[in-house]
Amino acid sequence: PETKLPRVGTTIFTVMSQLAAAHGAVNLGQGFPDFAVPERLVDALARAMREGHNQYAPMTGIPALRQAIAAKLARVYAVQADADTEITVTSGATEAIFDAVHAVVRAGDEVIVLDPAYDCYEPAIELAGARAVHVPLHPRTFAPDWDRVAAAITPATRMLMINSPHNPSGAMLSATDLDTLAGLLRDTGIWLLSDEVYEHIVFDGARHESVLRHPELRARAFVVSSFGKTYHCTGWKLGYCVAPPALSEEFRKVHQYNVFCSFAPAQHAFAAMLEAEPEHDEGLGAFYQAKRDRFREQLLGTRLLPLPVPGGYFQLVDYSETSDLDDAAFCRWLTIEKGVAAIPLSPFYASPPPGQRLARLCFAKNAATLDAAIVRLQKL
Amino acid sequence: PETKLPRVGTTIFTVMSQLAAAHGAVNLGQGFPDFAVPERLVDALARAMREGHNQYAPMTGIPALRQAIAAKLARVYAVQADADTEITVTSGATEAIFDAVHAVVRAGDEVIVLDPAYDCYEPAIELAGARAVHVPLHPRTFAPDWDRVAAAITPATRMLMINSPHNPSGAMLSATDLDTLAGLLRDTGIWLLSDEVYEHIVFDGARHESVLRHPELRARAFVVSSFGKTYHCTGWKLGYCVAPPALSEEFRKVHQYNVFCSFAPAQHAFAAMLEAEPEHDEGLGAFYQAKRDRFREQLLGTRLLPLPVPGGYFQLVDYSETSDLDDAAFCRWLTIEKGVAAIPLSPFYASPPPGQRLARLCFAKNAATLDAAIVRLQKL
Ligand SMILES: CSCCC(=O)C(=O)O
Ligand SMILES: CSCCC(=O)C(=O)O
Repeated sequence: PETKLPRVGTTIFTVMSQLAAAHGAVNLGQGFPDFAVPERLVDALARAMREGHNQYAPMTGIPALRQAIAAKLARVYAVQADADTEITVTSGATEAIFDAVHAVVRAGDEVIVLDPAYDCYEPAIELAGARAVHVPLHPRTFAPDWDRVAAAITPATRMLMINSPHNPSGAMLSATDLDTLAGLLRDTGIWLLSDEVYEHIVFDGARHESVLRHPELRARAFVVSSFGKTYHCTGWKLGYCVAPPALSEEFRKVHQYNVFCSFAPAQHAFAAMLEAEPEHDEGLGAFYQAKRDRFREQLLGTRLLPLPVPGGYFQLVDYSETSDLDDAAFCRWLTIEKGVAAIPLSPFYASPPPGQRLARLCFAKNAATLDAAIVRLQKL
Repeated sequence: PETKLPRVGTTIFTVMSQLAAAHGAVNLGQGFPDFAVPERLVDALARAMREGHNQYAPMTGIPALRQAIAAKLARVYAVQADADTEITVTSGATEAIFDAVHAVVRAGDEVIVLDPAYDCYEPAIELAGARAVHVPLHPRTFAPDWDRVAAAITPATRMLMINSPHNPSGAMLSATDLDTLAGLLRDTGIWLLSDEVYEHIVFDGARHESVLRHPELRARAFVVSSFGKTYHCTGWKLGYCVAPPALSEEFRKVHQYNVFCSFAPAQHAFAAMLEAEPEHDEGLGAFYQAKRDRFREQLLGTRLLPLPVPGGYFQLVDYSETSDLDDAAFCRWLTIEKGVAAIPLSPFYASPPPGQRLARLCFAKNAATLDAAIVRLQKL
C-alpha cells in the first residue's frame, strides 16, 4: 500500500534500545525505570485477577479508579474533577493523546506543536488529516517563545500541545506561562492538549503547574497523565485523560471504538494503590531528585556538560567538548563504541537547530546502572 | 466541540450491561464469560510481574509471544506466518481493527461492511475520513450475497470487512465463500479485514475457514484475533493482527503511535500459556458446544425460537411468538420486566430489516447463570 505516514519509521526509542542490546551497552536511551514496581501494586494486581476482575472494564474505566484519580487531583492540585463525566482511563498516555487528537482535530486543521516534541504527537495529527505547525522552544532553556506561538496561530489552528515537565529537556512551564497562553487562546476555538505524564517528578521544591489548576485553560484542555511514570511500570500502559464533560464526551467516542477499555486487573490494582498509599506520588520528586543529583555530580567527572533538569527523568548533556558529530551519529557512536545508549534530540524536531550538540540520558535507573554508565562516560 | 462522530453514542453493550445492573437482570447481553480464566494463565501473569517484566514491551509484541502465535497458526491452520514481519500484538482486537483501518483507508475512500456488523467497524472508518458502504447479509441465515457485494464495489472501495464466526449471528463463511470473495477482489486494490476473534469457538465438527488458509486472500488481508475470547479474559485486552510484511509495516506505524505497545506481563503470560498448553484452543469448541446444546435444549421450553449457531458464543432467538415490540424495545422490556438482559440486532445495522424480531443472548456463562435466565425466560 502507498503509505499514509511517509515520514514515520521505527521510533528512535526502539532503534536505540535495539542498538543497546546488540552492543551490550548500558541503556540510558529509552525512558523506563530499571527498578521494581511497588510490591503493593503487584500484589493488588494479582489479587484482582484471582478475585475474577478479568472481563471488560467499563469503557471509561472502573468507578473506583476514576474516583481515586479525582481524589488525587483534589489532594495534589486542589481541583475538583468529576469522576463520571471528566475522567477517562486509557491504555497509556499515548492512547489518550491519540484519542484527544482524533476527537476534535479534523482534516485540514492545524495543530501547534512546540519542538522538541515527543514523537507520537505528529503522527496522530497526520492520521487525523491535519498538519502539525512546529514552533521551536529556546534551544538551550527550552522555554516557549509565546510571541512565536501567537504568530503561528491561524484560523485553521484547532489545537495546541504543551508538555510539562518536558520530554526531552525537563523544562517546566510556569504559572506565568499558563497565564500568557490563556491570553493567546482566549476568544479562539483552539483546544489545548497538556501532556503531564511527568507531573510528579519535579525538583528543588518547584511546583508542577498543572493546566488543571488554571480554570480558564482547563475549560478547553485535555490533560493527560500516566501511571507508568509514577509507579515504575511503563509496560502496564495505563493512563488517563481529564477534560470538561463536552470534551470528554468526544474523547470517549474515540476511546470506545479504538480500544474500548483498558486492562481491567490493573485498574483495580491502581484503585487499591491510590487508596492505600496516596502519598506515593508526593515522594516521587525526592526519590528522583536523589538520582538526578548523584548522576549530575558524577557527570562533572566527564567531558559531558549537564544542562539544568527542573523535572522529569531525563538529563540533557552537551557533548560539544568531546565530539563534533551530529547528535544522531554521536548517539550511535556512544552506544556502539563507548557502550552507553543515549537518545539524540533531532528526532524530536521538524527542523533541528543547526549545530545543536545535545543527547538525552535517562536517569530512572538503579545506582549500579548509572555507575556503570559513568565509568564508560569518563573515558570520552 | 462540534462532534466528529454524530452517530456515535454509548455502545449498546454498555447500555444493556448498565440496564442489567440497575434492574438486577441476568446479563446475557454484553459478550463476556462469567467463568474463570485458566489458573495457569493467572499464575503466569503474576510470575511475569514478579520477574520484573513491567516495562515497555517491544512495540510489535515480545518475540516469545509472536513466535508462539506463529506456532499456533502452523499447528491450527498449517500456515506459516513470520513472527518478525507479519504478526503484531495489539491491545485487543478492537485496537487491531482501528489500526488496520487507519493504516490503509484514506479520506474519501469507501469500506464495505456486511450488516449486521460489530459496532466498532463504522466509527473507525468514519474517523479515517472514509464512508462505510453497508451490504446486508441474509436476514435469517446471515450468509453473504456476493452479487450484492460485487455490486457495491466502486473505484473508491479501499477495504472490505468480514467476520467469521460472525457476531451477532454465529454464521460462518465457507471455503467457497472465500473463493468467491477472492474472485471479487482479484485485480482490485481492495484490502481485506478479517475479524476472526471467535476462531476457536466452532461447532459440530465444522472447520473455521481462516483467511490465513487462503493464500490469495491472505496476501491482501489483515487477519485479527483476540486472546480474550479464547482464554476467557475479555478484560485483558490482548489480541493480534497477522498481515503480509508490507501491510504489517503500515499497521505498525499506526499501532506505534496509537498505543505503542500492549500490557507487557500478559504478553509473557500468553507466551507461557501457548507453549505449555497448546491444546487449550482445540478444546474450546467442545467446551462451548456443551453450553450451546444445553442452552438450546432449555430454550425449547420457552416461546423463544433459537436460530442455528454454527460458531461463536451468541444465540440468536426469534421472539415474534411472544412480542410485537421492535428489538430495542423488546430487549429493554426483557431486561427491566423479565430480568434477562439481551442485545437487540438493530444497532448492528445501518438499515435494520423491517420486522426483524431477533435478540442476541450470550451463552458464555456458567450453567447456574443460564439456568437462572431460563427460569425467567420460561415466563414469557
Ligand atoms: C514508548 S518508548 C519511549 C519512552 C519515552 O517516553 C521516552 O524515552 O521518551
Ligand atoms: C466491548 S463490549 C462488547 C463485547 C462483544 O464483543 C459483544 O457483546 O458483542
